[in-house]
Amino acid sequence: MTLLEKAKRGEITAEMQYVAEKEGVTPEFICEGVAKGEIVILHSSRENIHPVAVGKGLFTKVSASVGMYEADDTIDGEMAKIDAAVKAHADTLMDLSVRGPIEEMREKVLSTVDRPVGTLPMYETLSAAEAKYGTALDMTPDDLFDMIEKQASQGVAFIALHPGTTLSVIHRAKDEGRIDPLVSYGGSHLIGWMLYNNTENPLYTEFDRLIEICKKHDVVLSFADGMRPGCIADSLDHAQVEELVILGGLVRRAREAGVQVMVKGPGHVPLDEIAATVQLEKKLCYGAPYFVFGCLPTDAAAGYDHITSAIGGAVAAYAGADFLCYVTPAEHIGMPNVDDVYQGVMASRIAAHAGDVAKGHPQAVKWDLDMSVARRAMNWKEQFKLSIDPETAERVWRERSTSFTSECTMCGKYCAMKIVEKYLRAE
Amino acid sequence: MTLLEKAKRGEITAEMQYVAEKEGVTPEFICEGVAKGEIVILHSSRENIHPVAVGKGLFTKVSASVGMYEADDTIDGEMAKIDAAVKAHADTLMDLSVRGPIEEMREKVLSTVDRPVGTLPMYETLSAAEAKYGTALDMTPDDLFDMIEKQASQGVAFIALHPGTTLSVIHRAKDEGRIDPLVSYGGSHLIGWMLYNNTENPLYTEFDRLIEICKKHDVVLSFADGMRPGCIADSLDHAQVEELVILGGLVRRAREAGVQVMVKGPGHVPLDEIAATVQLEKKLCYGAPYFVFGCLPTDAAAGYDHITSAIGGAVAAYAGADFLCYVTPAEHIGMPNVDDVYQGVMASRIAAHAGDVAKGHPQAVKWDLDMSVARRAMNWKEQFKLSIDPETAERVWRERSTSFTSECTMCGKYCAMKIVEKYLRAE
Repeated sequence: MTLLEKAKRGEITAEMQYVAEKEGVTPEFICEGVAKGEIVILHSSRENIHPVAVGKGLFTKVSASVGMYEADDTIDGEMAKIDAAVKAHADTLMDLSVRGPIEEMREKVLSTVDRPVGTLPMYETLSAAEAKYGTALDMTPDDLFDMIEKQASQGVAFIALHPGTTLSVIHRAKDEGRIDPLVSYGGSHLIGWMLYNNTENPLYTEFDRLIEICKKHDVVLSFADGMRPGCIADSLDHAQVEELVILGGLVRRAREAGVQVMVKGPGHVPLDEIAATVQLEKKLCYGAPYFVFGCLPTDAAAGYDHITSAIGGAVAAYAGADFLCYVTPAEHIGMPNVDDVYQGVMASRIAAHAGDVAKGHPQAVKWDLDMSVARRAMNWKEQFKLSIDPETAERVWRERSTSFTSECTMCGKYCAMKIVEKYLRAE
Repeated sequence: MTLLEKAKRGEITAEMQYVAEKEGVTPEFICEGVAKGEIVILHSSRENIHPVAVGKGLFTKVSASVGMYEADDTIDGEMAKIDAAVKAHADTLMDLSVRGPIEEMREKVLSTVDRPVGTLPMYETLSAAEAKYGTALDMTPDDLFDMIEKQASQGVAFIALHPGTTLSVIHRAKDEGRIDPLVSYGGSHLIGWMLYNNTENPLYTEFDRLIEICKKHDVVLSFADGMRPGCIADSLDHAQVEELVILGGLVRRAREAGVQVMVKGPGHVPLDEIAATVQLEKKLCYGAPYFVFGCLPTDAAAGYDHITSAIGGAVAAYAGADFLCYVTPAEHIGMPNVDDVYQGVMASRIAAHAGDVAKGHPQAVKWDLDMSVARRAMNWKEQFKLSIDPETAERVWRERSTSFTSECTMCGKYCAMKIVEKYLRAE
């Protein structure tokens, strides 16, 4: 039985108990959320990997993606990025390698890290088809489903796929005259394959086959959006919304079959459309956890898109998004280096936390309150400890406070600050 | 006659024409906004300083503050920060020096920069009182008003003062049991002085005298908030709101006398209270431009408060805030260095722009659209040009793209991406 099937029966599993303790909620709360599909538990058959829950009423989570992309990318190079993401406290990782020894890389990640790992199986399928047929365009549906099964069986916790990117949706995007038609890399390859082979999306037509694999290995489906808008101007257009409508139906089918599912979202969304974007997903996808990419509320801040995404991510989290896919300062310009990964995770964590505070998450609110008390007490040690990144907070303090020995003597014998403090503390 | 008096008569001045061109609106729009008090024009008697308009229907503006604070701070050191703020395109500057050769520093800034400069006259008043009496607590109201006049006559564009921080408000803060009672540095000194001398706030009791000075030199009043909350937990508390109620009455008195006025706001505000905070100011202060400090939607991100403030600033701008006071990565930990100033301005500019896009500002929307078109065309040169910080965007690209020579050959003779592009472009 899958976790979802057990949850539907009200059976509390070890995974539910583990995540309940981490979240500060009851196992029953988790079990009910999983049963309804409003919470998913990302977990693995690997013993070194601890489960993470994503969804309603829980801390907003952050995922970091790495992967071999350029010809000279190496497993060691990507593992250094994984280390940076873990050091920055990313909740989950995604290995999105598109070339090189992809299976070896995945095995390395899965055997090394202590948190759930997601993949996008289309990438390795394309790479393998190129080796097998000389061109990725000759990939067969069997190749794709076999790869999904292989990855699921290896202990991948969640797999990203584009079952809603159907021919009708692609036609809609054409009619639409989008500014930036397609920015989903996996989605674009899938669409190219569909057009070249003049065929419907096999992930859609053979959805039951996909569900069977996910059920067998109890892996969480992460519905990716081939129509993810690539710029503010294309946000919430007909193609994006039609794909979401289709995904909503597939969410129900997956759930009914006992497979946990979450939905991936944009991307480029202006601030005034973020709440609607989140509400629409929650409505059309029956409350499935929403995994947003950013969101990015402007297109114009290349080099600073970790900040852009922190703005949109916080607003999305406050609006109900459950899971933030990080964005690094290198987004739109190049592949992130190790420091970019660290900065990207940290910016997303700030966004997640700001969203949690706004939603009134009791532990998030308490964290800020504890910091404020430490600030009033001028307790620097405690302030560093309570900072989202204690090491950086203390480093900035040390670098900037070299001259902090100079005391204020403005008021002579009496001190305005002490007078105020005495007044405020008096009974 | 002041600018406001001229605006009330429908007289278009050179300043109105200048800012109208910069904003892409008509001089009449500016004139009407100034007359209503919904727009203020920051301007100076110095010919090297060009006016900047702040308010409804205009681009959201960003201000950067510098100033000698530590015993070893120097004019040259602060001027280097001013240069960084100007390079990052801060719209205005504030010199908040509290010690050292303050007048010399201000003269240097006013004679050097090309944009409006604001000050907080209380600081130099306290410093001068210390020199004169041995303690800043013996400062007299005359000392304060004389200093305000001196600074206004020098060509300062806007002066920050705390006329709403009355004894009743201070008592309210005491009753309130705030977590972090006072974080406004100038406000705290004023309150300490009021308590020590057992007297009401002279900026409140002699408000007409203040207005006369501002009218004479046509300087914009920036109402500072002594009750600015110092943490999320204190946001929108009784003391903060009572002060805003009082400031609202003073806004009307200043305007009736022909003096332009804007209102400074928080500070620490959770995301779910930002819109209400902005609406309250707009309502209570008769639509006066709102100059927010951040806002910071979490207390827990020391070392990253430029990002925190970008989140809150964007949401505030979208909700109607007109002017963002930057926050640097050193906030709450130490005094910012030159790079902190640059990063702080850039983060606030991203926030301001994201807010403008959400509000549908036509030029802001066009900027993002132009970037998206350049992105689709893979026109890197144009993308850098359109980036909020072209130099950084190009540097990140150069550093990260060393291996971009490796071409994708995944699909052999045909390319999935080209197939998609061909399909989408077909008639």
